[in-house]
Amino acid sequence: MNMYEIIKKKREGNELSKEEINFFIENYTNGSIPDYQASALLMAIFFKKMSKEETVNLTEAMLRSGEEIDLTSIEGIKVDKHSTGGVGDKTTLVLGPMVAACGLPVAKMSGRGLGHTGGTLDKLESIEGLDISLSKEKFISNVNRIKLAVAGQTANIAPADKKLYSLRDVTATVDNTSLIASSIMSKKLASGSDAIVLDVKVGSGAFMKDLDSAFELAKEMVDIGIGMDRDTIAIISDMDEPLGYAIGNSLEVKEAINTLKGRGPKDLLELTLALGSRLLLLGKRVESIEEGYQLLNKVIDDGSAFDKFKEFITAQGGNSHQVDNPNLLPKAEQILELKADEAGYISEMNAEEIGRCALILGAGRETKESQIDMSAGIILNKKKYDKVSTGETIAFLHGNSDKKLKEAAKRMKNIVKISEKSNDNKQLIYGIVDKDGIKRI
Amino acid sequence: MNMYEIIKKKREGNELSKEEINFFIENYTNGSIPDYQASALLMAIFFKKMSKEETVNLTEAMLRSGEEIDLTSIEGIKVDKHSTGGVGDKTTLVLGPMVAACGLPVAKMSGRGLGHTGGTLDKLESIEGLDISLSKEKFISNVNRIKLAVAGQTANIAPADKKLYSLRDVTATVDNTSLIASSIMSKKLASGSDAIVLDVKVGSGAFMKDLDSAFELAKEMVDIGIGMDRDTIAIISDMDEPLGYAIGNSLEVKEAINTLKGRGPKDLLELTLALGSRLLLLGKRVESIEEGYQLLNKVIDDGSAFDKFKEFITAQGGNSHQVDNPNLLPKAEQILELKADEAGYISEMNAEEIGRCALILGAGRETKESQIDMSAGIILNKKKYDKVSTGETIAFLHGNSDKKLKEAAKRMKNIVKISEKSNDNKQLIYGIVDKDGIKRI
Repeated sequence: MNMYEIIKKKREGNELSKEEINFFIENYTNGSIPDYQASALLMAIFFKKMSKEETVNLTEAMLRSGEEIDLTSIEGIKVDKHSTGGVGDKTTLVLGPMVAACGLPVAKMSGRGLGHTGGTLDKLESIEGLDISLSKEKFISNVNRIKLAVAGQTANIAPADKKLYSLRDVTATVDNTSLIASSIMSKKLASGSDAIVLDVKVGSGAFMKDLDSAFELAKEMVDIGIGMDRDTIAIISDMDEPLGYAIGNSLEVKEAINTLKGRGPKDLLELTLALGSRLLLLGKRVESIEEGYQLLNKVIDDGSAFDKFKEFITAQGGNSHQVDNPNLLPKAEQILELKADEAGYISEMNAEEIGRCALILGAGRETKESQIDMSAGIILNKKKYDKVSTGETIAFLHGNSDKKLKEAAKRMKNIVKISEKSNDNKQLIYGIVDKDGIKRI
Repeated sequence: MNMYEIIKKKREGNELSKEEINFFIENYTNGSIPDYQASALLMAIFFKKMSKEETVNLTEAMLRSGEEIDLTSIEGIKVDKHSTGGVGDKTTLVLGPMVAACGLPVAKMSGRGLGHTGGTLDKLESIEGLDISLSKEKFISNVNRIKLAVAGQTANIAPADKKLYSLRDVTATVDNTSLIASSIMSKKLASGSDAIVLDVKVGSGAFMKDLDSAFELAKEMVDIGIGMDRDTIAIISDMDEPLGYAIGNSLEVKEAINTLKGRGPKDLLELTLALGSRLLLLGKRVESIEEGYQLLNKVIDDGSAFDKFKEFITAQGGNSHQVDNPNLLPKAEQILELKADEAGYISEMNAEEIGRCALILGAGRETKESQIDMSAGIILNKKKYDKVSTGETIAFLHGNSDKKLKEAAKRMKNIVKISEKSNDNKQLIYGIVDKDGIKRI
């Protein structure tokens, strides 16, 4: 077996065997296959695709390249949720406490934000004192005690994926569904959960810009999960405009708290219920999706979801006064109101662009080294298809620098489009992918 | 401009601009673009092809990456011949003296053999004392004085091609017509000739195995030559069986001498006349192909082509006694006769496989470092479609090692196929490609 033959085989459109994929991943990870052969193979994969079996084998090879986390000492079925990333997506902050309040263990390993998308860890760190670098023991004992812990990945998870991703990033071989799916799933599967619910975002603020490619990605990921004996389902949800109204770390925590108190944005709640009911079903906590919805609504109504959030924050050293009174969370010095120049209906609100405006204000990271301003961000006052009158506020920009506020406001002006025509054709969830295939809604 | 965007552009099937191609070649040659980005681009080119304009621009960028040889101090029009390589191809040894004897200057820079194909320099070096490492001054003064010199390339010709070729070789991106054509032509065009005649081989012993791809390659090379203002034509000739009867260095020199004396194999003479008449026409030495054939036949008949060969060998320090009496050339200790097991007609004589047998005997190089046995090789006694009786000799294997002779004979037995059916459908020249396009014969 040699790398030249493997490249040629894929170039000619043939299926690589499990042994060939293992040979590649093992020797690429240990450095005996050079980057220039790996990038040639990646480009050949870009053009010739990978079969379902190849994708599963690639995922398995990548996850085996590093540590696999052992969660067996957590009691019960461990179900994980993963989002492909979006703007204003604070779902984990709401979903985690709700599901935990229903009695299902949530052992969540999260990431940080980069570019226009935010990360759960950053958001949580806007709460004073909160520690996300738990030891493995503390992480597991917290989950066993209060059913919920969120921490950063400390283990050496899927190093092959890390190395390959860096190479794909500079060789224009990122956007291939099999490569994206195996990259995400190798990390997810190494994290030790028994079942996985995926939230595949689609639209201007998502990696997948159109429905077909979102369903394709979802299908590949579900196939990989099932191919590796984990119950896996995916929900395809909208990311054409931001989720909820808040974008920015402390602003999103505040919105999450409101949602746990039953006063959250409709779309955020709807998505959380859809994801949560599947988590409960896969975790065998309920017997139907409907029962899941009922149970989740109950833990909001009776306050137990909010209490669980506070318990979790306290358990990880966070200031619970900020949970009781979100006005104590970091606050920007200035708020600039962006007003409508004309009357009509909001016809477009490009989520990626709005993420970029939040980035300008300081809410995100341009590079891995950037510092985040926890108080900065945007609170939308209008969302897509909302009616707006001249002079009415479209959004509140929160920031700590005149220059940045002006720059963000100028950019934001160009993003929000107002049209004369009304439209009520808004959809949040486009479909479900599970072991039975694709169901479009 | 950056390499990522260039890879992406080509990956999406778009045409690269001259500036982008120059940027790539310049920065790849100086090391600022890494191999892994270059190989990703090469694989994208493999799948998305290059336009005529892109191929011309790539060729120009590669030839400009190194030295360009200045032949302006040679009087007259300089016409070069280039073969894509084959087995038993001693055409240059015959063509050079013939054309020079017709008064056209031949300033030939040649290469060495590798794998199953031989090289002109190796063949010439089987003549005692012959020096192919001429200084630039000596090379040019020889051409001006006797119209013929053959030397190895000493200058730093097209280093970009050299670097890219090594990368293609290990990333399965060799066999793309534009990349092959630009690689050959960048080196040819840097060698300073005014016009070029290409001999594109097709068949089992050639790089191009089928007619369509041979014509495609020829067309690309002719387009490049014309695109760079050099009169260029290509002949597509057979390399399904070896050319002539001799394979191996001193054996081929002997056959070349016989051909210059008018006693050579029909196919070798026919190809030499076809190529030579075009050289004379492009060099404006004759006004028609027919006049070219006449003049070339005349210099064989009157002995002036043979005299020119001797003059050339002497001028480069070679032993002219070996030219007068080829039996003085290096001779193998043993000759093994390969005989037919059955009667019939030779139906197949795979040229590459025969080249490999000659290699086993010591006639060629497995790697660049291998030593050549000048006396080793094969003299065919039968060629394709010849009638053969049981026990009749098919070939004489010349070698200096029992073991190698046995190994080569065993392999050769499997190569030569004998069938009951006769066939007279043999063709040497399949067509011509010039500025007017492809003419199939």
